[in-house]
Amino acid sequence: MRILFIGDVMGEPGQDMFVETVPVLKRSLHPQLTIANGENATRGRGINETVYKKLLKAGADVITMGNHTWDNREIQDFISSTKKLIRPANFSAGQVPGMGHTIVNVNGVKVGVLNIQGRVFMNPSDDPFAVAEGLISKLEKEVNVIFVDFHGEATSEKEAFAWNFDGRVSAVIGTHTHVQTNDARILPGGTAFLSDVGFTGPYDGILGMRRNSVISRFKNQMPTRFEVETDGQQALGAIMIDVDDRTGRAKKIKNIRVDPDHPYME
Amino acid sequence: MRILFIGDVMGEPGQDMFVETVPVLKRSLHPQLTIANGENATRGRGINETVYKKLLKAGADVITMGNHTWDNREIQDFISSTKKLIRPANFSAGQVPGMGHTIVNVNGVKVGVLNIQGRVFMNPSDDPFAVAEGLISKLEKEVNVIFVDFHGEATSEKEAFAWNFDGRVSAVIGTHTHVQTNDARILPGGTAFLSDVGFTGPYDGILGMRRNSVISRFKNQMPTRFEVETDGQQALGAIMIDVDDRTGRAKKIKNIRVDPDHPYME
Amino acid sequence: MRILFIGDVMGEPGQDMFVETVPVLKRSLHPQLTIANGENATRGRGINETVYKKLLKAGADVITMGNHTWDNREIQDFISSTKKLIRPANFSAGQVPGMGHTIVNVNGVKVGVLNIQGRVFMNPSDDPFAVAEGLISKLEKEVNVIFVDFHGEATSEKEAFAWNFDGRVSAVIGTHTHVQTNDARILPGGTAFLSDVGFTGPYDGILGMRRNSVISRFKNQMPTRFEVETDGQQALGAIMIDVDDRTGRAKKIKNIRVDPDHPYME
Amino acid sequence: MRILFIGDVMGEPGQDMFVETVPVLKRSLHPQLTIANGENATRGRGINETVYKKLLKAGADVITMGNHTWDNREIQDFISSTKKLIRPANFSAGQVPGMGHTIVNVNGVKVGVLNIQGRVFMNPSDDPFAVAEGLISKLEKEVNVIFVDFHGEATSEKEAFAWNFDGRVSAVIGTHTHVQTNDARILPGGTAFLSDVGFTGPYDGILGMRRNSVISRFKNQMPTRFEVETDGQQALGAIMIDVDDRTGRAKKIKNIRVDPDHPYME
Ligand SMILES: [Fe+2]
Ligand SMILES: [Fe+2]
Ligand SMILES: [Fe+2]
Ligand SMILES: [Fe+2]
Ligand SMILES: [Fe+2]
Ligand SMILES: [Fe+2]
Ligand SMILES: [Fe+2]
Ligand SMILES: [Fe+2]
Repeated sequence: MRILFIGDVMGEPGQDMFVETVPVLKRSLHPQLTIANGENATRGRGINETVYKKLLKAGADVITMGNHTWDNREIQDFISSTKKLIRPANFSAGQVPGMGHTIVNVNGVKVGVLNIQGRVFMNPSDDPFAVAEGLISKLEKEVNVIFVDFHGEATSEKEAFAWNFDGRVSAVIGTHTHVQTNDARILPGGTAFLSDVGFTGPYDGILGMRRNSVISRFKNQMPTRFEVETDGQQALGAIMIDVDDRTGRAKKIKNIRVDPDHPYME
Repeated sequence: MRILFIGDVMGEPGQDMFVETVPVLKRSLHPQLTIANGENATRGRGINETVYKKLLKAGADVITMGNHTWDNREIQDFISSTKKLIRPANFSAGQVPGMGHTIVNVNGVKVGVLNIQGRVFMNPSDDPFAVAEGLISKLEKEVNVIFVDFHGEATSEKEAFAWNFDGRVSAVIGTHTHVQTNDARILPGGTAFLSDVGFTGPYDGILGMRRNSVISRFKNQMPTRFEVETDGQQALGAIMIDVDDRTGRAKKIKNIRVDPDHPYME
Repeated sequence: MRILFIGDVMGEPGQDMFVETVPVLKRSLHPQLTIANGENATRGRGINETVYKKLLKAGADVITMGNHTWDNREIQDFISSTKKLIRPANFSAGQVPGMGHTIVNVNGVKVGVLNIQGRVFMNPSDDPFAVAEGLISKLEKEVNVIFVDFHGEATSEKEAFAWNFDGRVSAVIGTHTHVQTNDARILPGGTAFLSDVGFTGPYDGILGMRRNSVISRFKNQMPTRFEVETDGQQALGAIMIDVDDRTGRAKKIKNIRVDPDHPYME
Repeated sequence: MRILFIGDVMGEPGQDMFVETVPVLKRSLHPQLTIANGENATRGRGINETVYKKLLKAGADVITMGNHTWDNREIQDFISSTKKLIRPANFSAGQVPGMGHTIVNVNGVKVGVLNIQGRVFMNPSDDPFAVAEGLISKLEKEVNVIFVDFHGEATSEKEAFAWNFDGRVSAVIGTHTHVQTNDARILPGGTAFLSDVGFTGPYDGILGMRRNSVISRFKNQMPTRFEVETDGQQALGAIMIDVDDRTGRAKKIKNIRVDPDHPYME
């Protein structure tokens, strides 16, 4: 099967880009499963139900989250009643709403989707290696294909995680830095890996935020309100992975990057 | 002019890859200026004179450093007597050996090379924006072309830095994460930008270190000695930038990545 | 002369405690100079002019700040027009409003008051050692008595700072952790030192904030709004230092702690 | 019963101070249980068996540890075969040698001793609140008296932890900052609390390390080897707690500090 994964959708500009571009990508690439990280989808901070439904309608099958999971309180109203939205599994020993993994049926093939958050340079969370070990041990009895969105900052932690689970999951794709990396590869055991898929939103902001406030904060450390950049054009960061349904091994991994300098050619 | 910049050379495997590959790249791409980050060149930690000379002989014109600058004490023996090795300019108000910038003559054109270190998720250093502002203000009176190696962790800080100096420097290229990013672009003012150029060294380690010790540290937090991975094949991360000698504006930026999955085709 | 320094005044409860207790302390101890840290004075975040004036009226001669300096935007309206309110000197190379030191006249004796912020486990700021070196070098030509409020987290940095300037300043008193330490001493060179003076505000909160929200954040990492605890009784943390006006050497240092378990006995 | 707890014993100077002073304290105070933190006992980094036995012989009944637990590899040779040495319970889901709690018999009364490490400004570890909840839930069925050494940096986390378990444990005493705090109190539920007990070792070092290297690191960020300060006199930081054997409630808590400025008066 072919999996398409789209990086952190950022505010209204990100939603717009998603709604415009994902259908085009799907017509062109024919993924059977489309996953998107939605931790910044509503005004850059978390996701509410309206936006969640908008992303599903525009083509997402599963939404993953990250450190911004709880930023929008409305998520608590619907996260427990859906199987299509997951938050990092290693949050607070499960004493918080929602789930960290889900199983979706893709044309008769069951696929496990797992969301894990890193600990290096991030807020404290439960041990990502131990929690993932527990979940993957269970999932691998039930499914052949497992996709992991590893939401983290440090490249070392992302690489260590991917190598550690090489051969046991089909893909480990990083999110959080909002910058796509150029290290897509298939590890020897068959796990597709990319340190970060990048984000979907304003091309001329800083990680999607308005430039001036971010720069001014760096220069004088005085508080400024960060808002999603609404001027200018948009970019989309994604990855395409082909997986052998039976073995779960990745066969192909391909960066996708759409922006004004790199318009998508069908 | 054409500038070739090679990311953090890591230990003996990185040196070997550098010595083998850089001459090939130079024959093929004809850069007039070749710069390399050498903060991990000697056994992964700092650089000593032997290795410094080896990299120069193999084709580097200038060596830049980063947070590992002082890891090898031998650097203190020669950093003050060379203009071809610079360390981050925003170290300790200049109360440490060496310089944070240099000017090199490239076929009659003077080029400023600047090394700056970020502060987010890094050890404390002087304000990178303020120090760079001071140095660039001086350099721009003397040279038209300025290349900056911004050694940092956080993508936000790298983007903010590049946008802040857009139009005043020819290129801001990030180092430190050891993973090449896929966001090469020329900003509206003419500054070539890449968040991280990646590193040069073991392809199957974790950031160049032996996998087992890094993974085991992540799993049990017990101390392990990190050593450069010496088995397996090597990778090289680099970027090529074409700059208008007169205006200093970048005209072209192109990722270069050489590894077993992506052998270099001349 | 005798100096009385009162730790971080926290919100309305802290103001009330200050207004009630400082006059009592002054009647009893007869300090010639009273300094207070006001970084949390207005609703726990920064200080506005009304509260600033209230603290002066209640007995403070100088107000110092810390990492919360800019939390209340109103400070920008009056910080530049007063010599009685200072913020950490090592902020943004002086490119922000206000000053990091002041000189006050205490019965004909000039006293320098300096506010410095640490860098360990804190937001980035300029080098506290270098900035303090510059300021103290100037101040010591003009005054014999220098008082430093070092606003920082790490005990190592506070001790290193105090030992580094031992003999050149009369006192280095820490703030920021909101917990008074029990290490008051006079270093061999004559500098009075205390790692942290503690705070002034709710005795039954967590660092002055409402317990439940802080505990719940620690347990589930979900966002909660931290508000100053308004129930229950108050505490005050202070230090008294006697300094030789002529030599600037400290002669005595004495912890002061007033709370329901330790009512002040005149 | 009376419990005496002695803060981080630091290197040979700390051992010497311990051997000299603890017997004096015991003759004078008559504690039934003596606990000491030994994370820095062997050359400032971890503990080996020789030093462990020396501290027991000099009067300790139980040794607790902290973030330096694994610094000395020799601990792995004996930690699993003793019930008198514990390391933080929230390390790596128990996948490391040793235990995080122990039960000791004090004249027929069973006492639980628990070692927990904080996560704020510390290396990642398992959730201290969740792990402690699990252990205390079990321990409180078996013992009436529980003593917790909470090894952490941030005052907020220490206070939150103590308030959260108030009434369920007899004492929460902090370690790690090496500076004794002046906030000893008994919380309303009966839990004795002190943010930090301070350390035992060189009085004129920086947290026990040689001053010059620490200061020079702060000033120029260049690597220096930190060694335990061996010149000068020693200090000891401790706390005495009286607990009702039947209810487990603390009845009294008293700071103890012995140093050249505060010699111990029997
Ligand atoms: Fe994000
Ligand atoms: Fe994120
Ligand atoms: Fe590096
Ligand atoms: Fe680096
Ligand atoms: Fe404060
Ligand atoms: Fe503060
Ligand atoms: Fe310690
Ligand atoms: Fe410690």
